Amino acid sequence: MSRLRFNITMSLDGYVAGPNQSLKHPLGEGAEHLHDWAVRTRAFREIHGDRGGGEAGVNDDIIRETFDNIGATIMGRNMFGGGPGPWRVEPWTGWWGKNPPFHTPVFVLTHHTRSPLEMEGGTRFIFVTDGIETALAQAKKAAGKKDVSLGGGANVAQQYMAAGLIDEMELHVVPQLLGGGERLFKNLDDAKVRLDPTRTVEGPGVTHLKYRVLK
Amino acid sequence: MSRLRFNITMSLDGYVAGPNQSLKHPLGEGAEHLHDWAVRTRAFREIHGDRGGGEAGVNDDIIRETFDNIGATIMGRNMFGGGPGPWRVEPWTGWWGKNPPFHTPVFVLTHHTRSPLEMEGGTRFIFVTDGIETALAQAKKAAGKKDVSLGGGANVAQQYMAAGLIDEMELHVVPQLLGGGERLFKNLDDAKVRLDPTRTVEGPGVTHLKYRVLK
Repeated sequence: MSRLRFNITMSLDGYVAGPNQSLKHPLGEGAEHLHDWAVRTRAFREIHGDRGGGEAGVNDDIIRETFDNIGATIMGRNMFGGGPGPWRVEPWTGWWGKNPPFHTPVFVLTHHTRSPLEMEGGTRFIFVTDGIETALAQAKKAAGKKDVSLGGGANVAQQYMAAGLIDEMELHVVPQLLGGGERLFKNLDDAKVRLDPTRTVEGPGVTHLKYRVLK
Repeated sequence: MSRLRFNITMSLDGYVAGPNQSLKHPLGEGAEHLHDWAVRTRAFREIHGDRGGGEAGVNDDIIRETFDNIGATIMGRNMFGGGPGPWRVEPWTGWWGKNPPFHTPVFVLTHHTRSPLEMEGGTRFIFVTDGIETALAQAKKAAGKKDVSLGGGANVAQQYMAAGLIDEMELHVVPQLLGGGERLFKNLDDAKVRLDPTRTVEGPGVTHLKYRVLK
C-alpha cells in the first residue's frame, strides 16, 4: 500500500529553516549550510542532473533511499516559492530550473488555482486548492503502488503530522544551532504525534533518525 | 586536564522539561516518561542505592559512562529544588533523600547563601552565590584530575554553553514531543556554540548523540 514518507534536515535545536527567508536567504539566515551533507552526495548531484562528482558512502545511501520507490510528491506553497516580491519571476515555475529533481507528479498546496506545469525530466506541478487530504488522495492515485514523498516546508509538514497522515518520518539532524526560524514540531505534541524509532544511522556531519508514526 | 561534561535527556522537539513544573510534576507536565530509558537501567538503580534489578545493555553502558571519572558536580537552583511553595520541606536538602546519587561534591548555583550540607554516600552540597565561573573553578579544584559533571537544568546549561565553558556534551534524544516547557538551546545559536559530533549510539527508546564543543 502506498505510504506517505517525510524526510527533512533539522538543526539540533529543532529548526528546518532559519529566520527571515528571502531570495538572498531562501533557507533563512544562517541556514546556508544546513543541507551541505546532502549536497555533497553523488545521489544529490545525479538527481539534479549533474553526472560528475559527489561523495559515495552512508549519506549517499540515505539520499538514494529517500528517493527510492517514490511515485508522487507533495509540497507547500512556500517550498514551491513564487510569493510576492520584487524578485519574483513571471511565470514562476519553482526554484529548480527546467528539470526539477522530483521526476514525479508534484502536488503543490496553494490557495490560488493555476494550470498544471509540465517540466522536463518527468516533473509535473499540479496545484491543489482544496486541502491536504485531497492532495494526498491525488498523490496516492498518481503514485500507484509506489509511495508519496512529503517535501515540506514546516507548515505543511505540521498539518500532515497533526492530521495523522504521515506513515514514516526520517530526520537528518545536523550539529548546528540556528537559534530561530521555522521549528519543525511547532504546535505539536505526543497527543498528536507518536513516534516509534526504527533506525539510527550516523553519517559524516549528520545523524539520520527514522521513525514509524503510530496511528 | 579536568573537563566540564554535560549530558541531558531531550525530547525530539528540543525540550528537557515540560511546561508547568510543580511538586506534582517536577519535570513538568507530560514529561513523566522522559527519563524512563535511564530509570530502567541497572546503573541508574545502583547509583540510587538500589542493588536489585534493572536492565543491562547499551543504555546501561551509557549511564555508567556519564558517571565515570566524575569528581564534582554543578547544578542550578531549580534542579536542587526548594523554591517557595506550600510543599516546601524545611530544611530543604534536595529531591534525592539522605543518600543522593551524586557521590561527589555538588556545587549548587544560587542567589542565597547557605552552609554546606553533608549527605550520606559522599555527596556534599555547596552553595555558590558568585556565578558560574566561580562554581566551575571550585568544582574543578574539588575534582582534581577527574572531570566535572554539569547537571542542569536548562537555564544553567544555557549559561555555561553561552560562556563556552562546556567541553563535552551528550544528548539522550527520546522520541517524544513535549510541545512546550524548557527548551535546551533557547537563546543559543552557532555563533555561541559550535559542536563537533563524535559518536552516535542507538539504544532502546533513545539515541545518544555525543559532541565535542569547539572553542
